[in-house]
Amino acid sequence: MLPILCMVGASDSGKTTLLEKLIPELNRRGYRVGTVKHDVHGFEMDREGKDTWRHRKAGAGTVAISSPTQVAAVRQVDEEMGLDELVGRFFWNEDLLLTEGFKRSPFPKIEVFRRAVETAPICRPEDNLIAVVTDDAVETDLPVFGFGQVQALADFIEERFLKGRRTHQVTVLLDGKKLPMNDFVRDFLVGGIHGMLSSLRGWKNPDTIDIQIRLKEQ
Amino acid sequence: MLPILCMVGASDSGKTTLLEKLIPELNRRGYRVGTVKHDVHGFEMDREGKDTWRHRKAGAGTVAISSPTQVAAVRQVDEEMGLDELVGRFFWNEDLLLTEGFKRSPFPKIEVFRRAVETAPICRPEDNLIAVVTDDAVETDLPVFGFGQVQALADFIEERFLKGRRTHQVTVLLDGKKLPMNDFVRDFLVGGIHGMLSSLRGWKNPDTIDIQIRLKEQ
Repeated sequence: MLPILCMVGASDSGKTTLLEKLIPELNRRGYRVGTVKHDVHGFEMDREGKDTWRHRKAGAGTVAISSPTQVAAVRQVDEEMGLDELVGRFFWNEDLLLTEGFKRSPFPKIEVFRRAVETAPICRPEDNLIAVVTDDAVETDLPVFGFGQVQALADFIEERFLKGRRTHQVTVLLDGKKLPMNDFVRDFLVGGIHGMLSSLRGWKNPDTIDIQIRLKEQ
Repeated sequence: MLPILCMVGASDSGKTTLLEKLIPELNRRGYRVGTVKHDVHGFEMDREGKDTWRHRKAGAGTVAISSPTQVAAVRQVDEEMGLDELVGRFFWNEDLLLTEGFKRSPFPKIEVFRRAVETAPICRPEDNLIAVVTDDAVETDLPVFGFGQVQALADFIEERFLKGRRTHQVTVLLDGKKLPMNDFVRDFLVGGIHGMLSSLRGWKNPDTIDIQIRLKEQ
């Protein structure tokens, strides 16, 4: 699966501003970056009166809009989608996923901590915290970066998540829930699927294979 | 694959208004409907200054936002995504996809024709036109519905696209392009994948299986 790194911290600690510096630096190094924003209050993505908004209000569960430069989809859900499923659904050719929020997820985290906003960091190392970005001294054994040390932070992320990707990345979702698998199973599955597909007319050696199966009603 | 039906017609012919009546009628009959709007000019889905907008402007190729009731993703593309890929990527538990536009696609079409807007319908039966919705008399052998005949139109769509779905639905995308397959190959592939996955710990009988593979660099 795509590496996931969560930027966590209090409101106004500077997460978005940091991402605005970090994303171009990672792009400059040749990496494709995706982001996910965690929103607890409900957001309005499309605009009142627009056709997509009207489709949604009429009861379309998923509404997409497609243009030559951009595509967007808005989907109604009964419960919040986990990061696993979000990544499996919406990110298929990125190298790294950076999130804003998702403090309670099991994925590695960097805390953005600004002394004027909080009195102490909100994460502990046992929350899978791997570094802190701060404007102050923080007592920790973890790597600490200043808000201006974007290159050093990008070095750290590159070293930890992006270098030496030597394996296939596979995500299997059953009804949207990730099926866990070890390296052996992953390679067995990739081998089996590759073998079945590669004998078909229309096969070419792709970088990505996406398979969507909806089983017939029993 | 999910059945796709394109609502085509000139601007202001009433496509969106018709969808606003048709979608609730299909929902009422128990079908989940997705929609795709074709946009030739480029749209702005997220809003200036919002975090997702800032991520995108900073260079994130895909930006998603997730809440307990709704999830949205905006993706930058180099060329327009085909309907095949749009459906394979963004629609995984709908029963029917209705589009606004996509006049040049190979999928079945219903033309929305209003005499005050155009002098003649823009589609011909050879464009895979299957019906016309109009406020006027139209010379055609195809079924014709008035703008108020939403139930009759829903009957027609249900009969043609939604009843008696007896097969597995499978979409395979190689680098985003659909791999064509016949019924035998489809069943062979579903059987093979089902067989491999169902022996794993963590398997349960799902309605949908989604597999995303990114092959390692050679």
